[in-house]
Amino acid sequence: MTHRDADPRTRLHRYPDRGSDDRAALDALLDAEWTGVLSTVVDGEPWAVPMLFVRAGDEIVLHGSTGAGALRAVAAGAPAVLTVMAVDALVVAHTTFDSSMNYRSATIRGQLTPVDSERAAELLDLLSDRMLPGRSTEVRGHLPKELAATLAMTLPITDGEWIYKARTGGVGDEPSGVDAGTTAWAGVVPITRGYGEPEPAGWNRGELPASVRALTGRG
Amino acid sequence: MTHRDADPRTRLHRYPDRGSDDRAALDALLDAEWTGVLSTVVDGEPWAVPMLFVRAGDEIVLHGSTGAGALRAVAAGAPAVLTVMAVDALVVAHTTFDSSMNYRSATIRGQLTPVDSERAAELLDLLSDRMLPGRSTEVRGHLPKELAATLAMTLPITDGEWIYKARTGGVGDEPSGVDAGTTAWAGVVPITRGYGEPEPAGWNRGELPASVRALTGRG
Repeated sequence: MTHRDADPRTRLHRYPDRGSDDRAALDALLDAEWTGVLSTVVDGEPWAVPMLFVRAGDEIVLHGSTGAGALRAVAAGAPAVLTVMAVDALVVAHTTFDSSMNYRSATIRGQLTPVDSERAAELLDLLSDRMLPGRSTEVRGHLPKELAATLAMTLPITDGEWIYKARTGGVGDEPSGVDAGTTAWAGVVPITRGYGEPEPAGWNRGELPASVRALTGRG
Repeated sequence: MTHRDADPRTRLHRYPDRGSDDRAALDALLDAEWTGVLSTVVDGEPWAVPMLFVRAGDEIVLHGSTGAGALRAVAAGAPAVLTVMAVDALVVAHTTFDSSMNYRSATIRGQLTPVDSERAAELLDLLSDRMLPGRSTEVRGHLPKELAATLAMTLPITDGEWIYKARTGGVGDEPSGVDAGTTAWAGVVPITRGYGEPEPAGWNRGELPASVRALTGRG
């Protein structure tokens, strides 16, 4: 029994075998995905918004406009949860009941802290480079007015305050009982992410950059 | 000004031009995606879990195990929000500040209602067919014990209780001022979803079914 089991907020009620204390697995998910859902409580009601994020060591970086009201409430220290999910495969069993998905998911609970503009510039470059590796070196640096218009915040990744869950592998064991000898197909269908042909802006004067060529394998 | 503007919970604070009252656009998003994040409040704290869902007319169908404690709390009528997001493209501008993503997102607020097992059977088939069209006709029907182990719930799609937001199109207008004449590449990189080669279970006795062939374009 770990510290996590003691806290009803982060206890896994179902499929505890699908949960993991593996921080490396958590980081791999967080580094592969760009978007999550930030949930908090506003006036006793649930509030949620999809957001871009990037992991920076033991912190999750989120950002928004300084004019975004609800985000300011979260930045002021309201308890928050970020949920991230990746869908890896359809698990197609001989019945719909036994069918499933291979996925990885995480919820990270904590309070957000705004960062100063020097650190914000660094973290925004990190976010940009996570989505399009190398991009931050191909463009000019942030202007002070750009940083002033951006609210960057961090959510700490604290032991006991995150849950990682995943389903991996194939369908279950060969069925017995009523389904013994079934001839309904059973297997896994991987789901992949790809990139289409880059579409330059009408006013674009540049060559297709190394970052986009490397990401898309085109150009 | 619509009814939505009157409710601070569903008001759009930023980029109001990216919001839409278009129910058809909402439905198109909900019918294209399989997963969302369900947020609620438990003991005053935010609680969130990623879930499969399917839209059935004016309702969102969610399901889980009857043994899942937190889900039972939501099924008992706690206020909930489902957040769904699709990422369509990287919007690569001449600066990271002007870069963005094309996305579609929705939040749907309401209370969940459990459904009886007859309706659950129908809705679970709908969910199955959304992920893998035609699959429910290739397998046997639900067993009573399977339905008894499943908690199916619906979240109504109610006017004034949902928000749809999207960014579409290309990068912004040709830059002026400090960035006039920039030669940094600017354009859009589409993001696509694909399927890999189906991997049959070791014990599989079936032929690759029409549903998987149609989805993946293989076999």
